[in-house]
Amino acid sequence: MKNLLSITDLDRDDLETMLSLSEDFLHVTERDIPKVPALQGKVVVSLFYEDSTRTRISFETAAKRLSCDVMSFSVGSSSVNKGEGLRDTVQTIAAMGVDAVVVRHSAAGAPNRVASWIDASIINAGDGSHEHPTQALLDLLTLRRKRGSDLSGLRVAIVGDIVHSRVARSLVLGLDAVGAHTTLVAPPTLLPDSLEGWPVDVTHDLDSLLPELDVLYLLRIQRERQSASRLPSLREYTARWGLTVERASRLKPDTLVMHPGPMNRGVEIAAEVAEGPASLIKEQVTNGVAVRMAVLYTLLGSGGTVA
Amino acid sequence: MKNLLSITDLDRDDLETMLSLSEDFLHVTERDIPKVPALQGKVVVSLFYEDSTRTRISFETAAKRLSCDVMSFSVGSSSVNKGEGLRDTVQTIAAMGVDAVVVRHSAAGAPNRVASWIDASIINAGDGSHEHPTQALLDLLTLRRKRGSDLSGLRVAIVGDIVHSRVARSLVLGLDAVGAHTTLVAPPTLLPDSLEGWPVDVTHDLDSLLPELDVLYLLRIQRERQSASRLPSLREYTARWGLTVERASRLKPDTLVMHPGPMNRGVEIAAEVAEGPASLIKEQVTNGVAVRMAVLYTLLGSGGTVA
Amino acid sequence: MKNLLSITDLDRDDLETMLSLSEDFLHVTERDIPKVPALQGKVVVSLFYEDSTRTRISFETAAKRLSCDVMSFSVGSSSVNKGEGLRDTVQTIAAMGVDAVVVRHSAAGAPNRVASWIDASIINAGDGSHEHPTQALLDLLTLRRKRGSDLSGLRVAIVGDIVHSRVARSLVLGLDAVGAHTTLVAPPTLLPDSLEGWPVDVTHDLDSLLPELDVLYLLRIQRERQSASRLPSLREYTARWGLTVERASRLKPDTLVMHPGPMNRGVEIAAEVAEGPASLIKEQVTNGVAVRMAVLYTLLGSGGTVA
Repeated sequence: MKNLLSITDLDRDDLETMLSLSEDFLHVTERDIPKVPALQGKVVVSLFYEDSTRTRISFETAAKRLSCDVMSFSVGSSSVNKGEGLRDTVQTIAAMGVDAVVVRHSAAGAPNRVASWIDASIINAGDGSHEHPTQALLDLLTLRRKRGSDLSGLRVAIVGDIVHSRVARSLVLGLDAVGAHTTLVAPPTLLPDSLEGWPVDVTHDLDSLLPELDVLYLLRIQRERQSASRLPSLREYTARWGLTVERASRLKPDTLVMHPGPMNRGVEIAAEVAEGPASLIKEQVTNGVAVRMAVLYTLLGSGGTVA
Repeated sequence: MKNLLSITDLDRDDLETMLSLSEDFLHVTERDIPKVPALQGKVVVSLFYEDSTRTRISFETAAKRLSCDVMSFSVGSSSVNKGEGLRDTVQTIAAMGVDAVVVRHSAAGAPNRVASWIDASIINAGDGSHEHPTQALLDLLTLRRKRGSDLSGLRVAIVGDIVHSRVARSLVLGLDAVGAHTTLVAPPTLLPDSLEGWPVDVTHDLDSLLPELDVLYLLRIQRERQSASRLPSLREYTARWGLTVERASRLKPDTLVMHPGPMNRGVEIAAEVAEGPASLIKEQVTNGVAVRMAVLYTLLGSGGTVA
Repeated sequence: MKNLLSITDLDRDDLETMLSLSEDFLHVTERDIPKVPALQGKVVVSLFYEDSTRTRISFETAAKRLSCDVMSFSVGSSSVNKGEGLRDTVQTIAAMGVDAVVVRHSAAGAPNRVASWIDASIINAGDGSHEHPTQALLDLLTLRRKRGSDLSGLRVAIVGDIVHSRVARSLVLGLDAVGAHTTLVAPPTLLPDSLEGWPVDVTHDLDSLLPELDVLYLLRIQRERQSASRLPSLREYTARWGLTVERASRLKPDTLVMHPGPMNRGVEIAAEVAEGPASLIKEQVTNGVAVRMAVLYTLLGSGGTVA
């Protein structure tokens, strides 16, 4: 395994192995010195063509905990401004002797193109509305730690802006691989025109689903969609699809609530619910570092023991 | 001791201990390899909502010399741009397993709020017009190295934009704790409306103070205040409150001159004086790294020996 | 040797020594763990007043492979914005205990001024239209690895925007030091008014030179020059001075093609030629890291063995 471009690069066995390894790394991060020399001297570059605090810092933390050297650059501070193309940029980086490049880009498929140009390992950290595989992995790890390693039969609803969400796309595929069952919930304008081939059910009606869900996964509502008339008013959105306190009270006592962040409190999720006992939002962030350690270790490691 | 939010978090004994430890770290920085493994594997994040070369680089240098892993982000390059709130940002950072967050923010009290939200150690690197405790510590260390560990009775004048200065506020409190005596010198428009409770004298007249001062501490004049009619013209400011060569000649031979930087040469201080033998401005910067090592070590260390 | 400000800081013997050392470091970078503890604890700051992905990342990679601590700041993220002068910025950095500063600046001579102000080692990473000595070193290393250590008599053409090119200036001087012979090729508007003292021939006619060249070195055409009427249209430039596929077919079979990057494919060089077997463009980038390791090691090392 050289790259992680799509969650489908991992079959069910690979997923299990990656999640087990992630749990090992979670234990490493709980040590007094949460750092292992496993990837000493390896160079990891984070190449972010879109802003993202959480994803970039999560990857860089993971890489440093494996003793990698980390180089980071984002559009604002790079010669991308000189009009240098993506291809030249990554070929230049590759020629400097880089071992892995973590790519975030607004164009779907950009990480795949990068992987076709250079020999370093490429990790997709989000490409347009396409995929975000490490987000799906961290979500699966979070569920596994709450519900055990067998997630088959789990009933999950993903609610919100499906059409623009790389998170939804990767997560649907990952949940399918482990045998969970997903329902997409959204206003018609936020659903793809065709869902042919997606292993999901679809509904516009969140309320009728509430009593039977094991997991309620809320997507971020991007306010800029509103001006594009994709969205009803935020108030209307919250009224019908937001996880309000009232709506949360109609979930089963053990329903888990998740969100990839950053949240719009009071829009897609009430602050009280986000901070409440059902919420796994902090665990998701914590698990993200462990998952990214596991991915880097799998792609760059020599296959020895973790620590 | 978990956080450093205000210089008043340290009582006189704590101050002495911190300054002694800082001197130990000064010796470390003079070694051939100025680095100790004391905080290996600890993760320090610098979270700067305002630009500051000197403070950010000083903290990051300190952290690296203690073998910490350092992650830095500033407003421009973070999802702060997505409108993510301070709270979500720091909670996310905390969930990734961060040990300390160094916060610079334009709002007074922001570091205190951050400290109420997360478990990591918080260091205030300047909040609005409120406090800048490590600046006060480095100023005290600089004085101590010139005048010995007993600073009681020292006569200090702080000159300039008192009302907007977190440097002044923290320094006044620090000087008071060690028994020094401070006079604030400024045009009326640059003094707070009330100085009740500040352990200081106040005057508009710098010239009459000159012959009796042990320390003359000049604050940066921020040119943008001028348009807000807080300031007379820069020329007038310099004429009355600037440390010109002529004015410097009226100081005692052993009066020490300090400035937190960055300087406006020719405005609040003449270039010749800034570079002259009385100036401690370079020492202040050097001592800043040692003080920040001591603070990080105190907050994050296991209490073992320094090296 | 304390600084590297100009390629002329190195005489022919120094050049040989530096290039041999660079080859040693090339071997280090091919190891499984491409990292040596040679400069552990040394602090290197990259101070870039102009954007440059490739040069900054190349220097930072080199420094990390030598186990230095690296601090980077560029104009956008520093208090340069506060109007702090270059002098105060570098004096502040120096006072923090920095060992080397890598300076990129739009003003010719800026690194020399920096070197006059502080004690740290200064490396010129490009100053205006003046010099870019590590680029010349990496170009010489690239030639040496293809043509052996004796480069005397080599016939080189440098084509393009000579007048604005620090790359051309440093390379001409470096090639002269090793005994190679250089011809500058450019439209009259892109040549300096006087070339007195430059050890070169000059021509406007690329085509007549093609059959006799050992090395064809193409400079980047900066599109912004066009509006300043320095340039004919890009199409006209390519027609007369671009390395098209047709023109490449008239080179000797063993003529080497070089470019400092970033390229304008289809303007000064055809994409097919840039990717073709004669092109050394990737090797140049790879060799850049090794050369910068050698420079840092020479300036900061204690003179012991490399690994």
